[in-house]
Amino acid sequence: MEFGKLSKTELKTLQAQLAKKFDACKAMGLKLNMARGKPSAEQLDLSLDMLDQITSRSNVVLPDGTDCRNYGLADGLPEMRGMLGKMMGLPAENVIVGGNSSLNMMFDAISCCMTHGLPGGKPWCLEEHRKFLCPSPGYDRHFGVTEYFGFELITVPMLPTGPDMDVVEKLVFSDPDIKGIWCVPKYSNPTGITYSDETVRRFAALKPAAPDFRIFWDNAYCVHDLTDTPDHLLNLWDECQKAGNPDLPVFFASTSKITFPGAGVAAMGASDNNLQVFRKHYKYQTIGPDKLNQLRHLLFLKKVGGIPAQMCRQRAIIAPKFEAVEQIFEQELAGKGVAAWTKPNGGYFISVDVTPGCAKRTVALCKEAGVTLTGAGATFPYHKDPQDSNIRVAPTYPPLEEVKQAAKLFCLCAQMAVCEKLLES
Amino acid sequence: MEFGKLSKTELKTLQAQLAKKFDACKAMGLKLNMARGKPSAEQLDLSLDMLDQITSRSNVVLPDGTDCRNYGLADGLPEMRGMLGKMMGLPAENVIVGGNSSLNMMFDAISCCMTHGLPGGKPWCLEEHRKFLCPSPGYDRHFGVTEYFGFELITVPMLPTGPDMDVVEKLVFSDPDIKGIWCVPKYSNPTGITYSDETVRRFAALKPAAPDFRIFWDNAYCVHDLTDTPDHLLNLWDECQKAGNPDLPVFFASTSKITFPGAGVAAMGASDNNLQVFRKHYKYQTIGPDKLNQLRHLLFLKKVGGIPAQMCRQRAIIAPKFEAVEQIFEQELAGKGVAAWTKPNGGYFISVDVTPGCAKRTVALCKEAGVTLTGAGATFPYHKDPQDSNIRVAPTYPPLEEVKQAAKLFCLCAQMAVCEKLLES
Repeated sequence: MEFGKLSKTELKTLQAQLAKKFDACKAMGLKLNMARGKPSAEQLDLSLDMLDQITSRSNVVLPDGTDCRNYGLADGLPEMRGMLGKMMGLPAENVIVGGNSSLNMMFDAISCCMTHGLPGGKPWCLEEHRKFLCPSPGYDRHFGVTEYFGFELITVPMLPTGPDMDVVEKLVFSDPDIKGIWCVPKYSNPTGITYSDETVRRFAALKPAAPDFRIFWDNAYCVHDLTDTPDHLLNLWDECQKAGNPDLPVFFASTSKITFPGAGVAAMGASDNNLQVFRKHYKYQTIGPDKLNQLRHLLFLKKVGGIPAQMCRQRAIIAPKFEAVEQIFEQELAGKGVAAWTKPNGGYFISVDVTPGCAKRTVALCKEAGVTLTGAGATFPYHKDPQDSNIRVAPTYPPLEEVKQAAKLFCLCAQMAVCEKLLES
Repeated sequence: MEFGKLSKTELKTLQAQLAKKFDACKAMGLKLNMARGKPSAEQLDLSLDMLDQITSRSNVVLPDGTDCRNYGLADGLPEMRGMLGKMMGLPAENVIVGGNSSLNMMFDAISCCMTHGLPGGKPWCLEEHRKFLCPSPGYDRHFGVTEYFGFELITVPMLPTGPDMDVVEKLVFSDPDIKGIWCVPKYSNPTGITYSDETVRRFAALKPAAPDFRIFWDNAYCVHDLTDTPDHLLNLWDECQKAGNPDLPVFFASTSKITFPGAGVAAMGASDNNLQVFRKHYKYQTIGPDKLNQLRHLLFLKKVGGIPAQMCRQRAIIAPKFEAVEQIFEQELAGKGVAAWTKPNGGYFISVDVTPGCAKRTVALCKEAGVTLTGAGATFPYHKDPQDSNIRVAPTYPPLEEVKQAAKLFCLCAQMAVCEKLLES
């Protein structure tokens, strides 16, 4: 029963049925939040033991004499650089482990380029026009950073293989005002896809017009598998070395969704040439990161059998939520021509494309019935989805039963929105 | 026996005696560091209990439902904002509690002004000439931040009452390129003096030519008293309110020298107008600070009876080191016309002015015998002390006995340097 094939009379009947269900939902007084990629309390409990790793009886002095309580060690604990470097696919010596937020490290990297620039270019703040590529749908906070710094945000379509590389190559090759591109290469936010090998190789082989063009490779979900058939991402570091483009990418990751979102450990990585610029920035910015929290992470993650083991425990909590949402979407929406959605092998999001022109209305209806979703349009530059179609669904935060309720409500609201739209036309 | 009054022959005899002692010192193979204002291991042990405040059995969820492990709360824990606000003399609602480094917050504040500017001005990066006032001797890392951002650093003489306000007022009033001034108002780094009431009032009453001029008030040693007659600093926040200049200052402080230097909690404070600018910056930069470490601090500091009680315990360790250095300086240097030094009531430094032209040589001799001091000149813009006279002595880090050894060596080296100088002339 495709909605588009229904007569106006049939649609009106349907609308009345949906409205009745909606009123019943509203009467339940739901108060659920599926807006952000936020781990649930149950997930956070997985890392509670981390808090016992350093206590008053611990040894906080490393074998080399470094007292983790005191100042210093701007690059972070060497062993932590190794652990996160391995996770990111980078040599430890090219990794800087920082504070609790990889977003902060990305922001600082852009800020550093704004005020000081990169080899071959001038400070970006002195560029009259500066532009940044934003594969969309994408991560709103990425886009926000470059919007804050006055970049023109240029939408690049997202394909099942990653950003449309024909578009990327053409733009980057021809326009020296384009200084970078935001990428979430594995389990992309929000579409959940992983860049294909060809996409990664084409990134590594880019020939940008701007000598100071950089790929901001936010590998936020690099170990966040949810199924027995996880995606595999080609290593951009290796590919860039092969392609003779080692300075092209800057890598980011964190333990925010491995341990604690608010008290995790973030890392960045880059070539020696790039690190020379960023290390100078950090040299003036701080006397060093919180090494105790790094030590806490190191001891805990080793104790639980490493990052992969910890991620298995995370998966056990998250995967059923994704499965539940997909099952409900399948039951409620399949064959109706109302929406298409992704079935990711990992990450934090399901991306839904409702009938164009219906995303805002769907989100508003959900809100009315007590379920907060990411604002429609948030996944596009300037919060403007040209199709008004994409909605990011984040199933991790509420408990499973609530996720189910929310998913059902979502399906109802999407159908209502499409009904309305069809009746208008 | 003033060195300046000795004959060349007498100086040569003296020089030979000093050289003999110096060789004996060198033979001891010392390896001491008095370069940085760094707490000792003994001081760090005072806060070890902090690590037991949050463990796997703790409640990490605040009464209002905030889970300290998760994302959010960009301004920091409300109760921590209150505690640090009280310490800084600011209302809690005008305080942002951040990560582990107040230097980082200062850097970010300057960086924010560079790229985005303040009300009434344009982004500082677009100012052709930008200048910053640096009361000297002062804190090298302050000067470094503004040097990194391309400011011309203008030296302002430090008096026993604080920066020479005649100079400050005249410069700030007449030159719109001057965007700010660095201040360590209590137990100043390195002179140890506290700004007089008049100085604070004159700061509050400044009429800068630049509408976006700001006072960077780094109250790093606000509770770091070392004697029974602590200095009292007038509250600049209050004075600025009275003077109708609430937007003039930006305040900074941290627990780096209250708990752990590498894993403390930093804070900044400012008027609503200023915070509007900085909060926007933080909104894009991070999803929130490490609230677990803030909670850890809150619980620990309350448990030990508050910040003042904790500082009494710090004083018990540090004060004897300051007393020892002062006593040795008195014994070895008094009446010789070789050096003058400060006797601070708090803070982390003793500032020594050796005979002009002798600072670098003194530091080099100390180094030769195994004692690392802050580089001569470091306390001035561009690391250039026009007199080559000032040396910052930081007695906190080594154990007491080593501090004594280092102080004795320092006296020896200062005398040697002055001897050489006099024999040259």
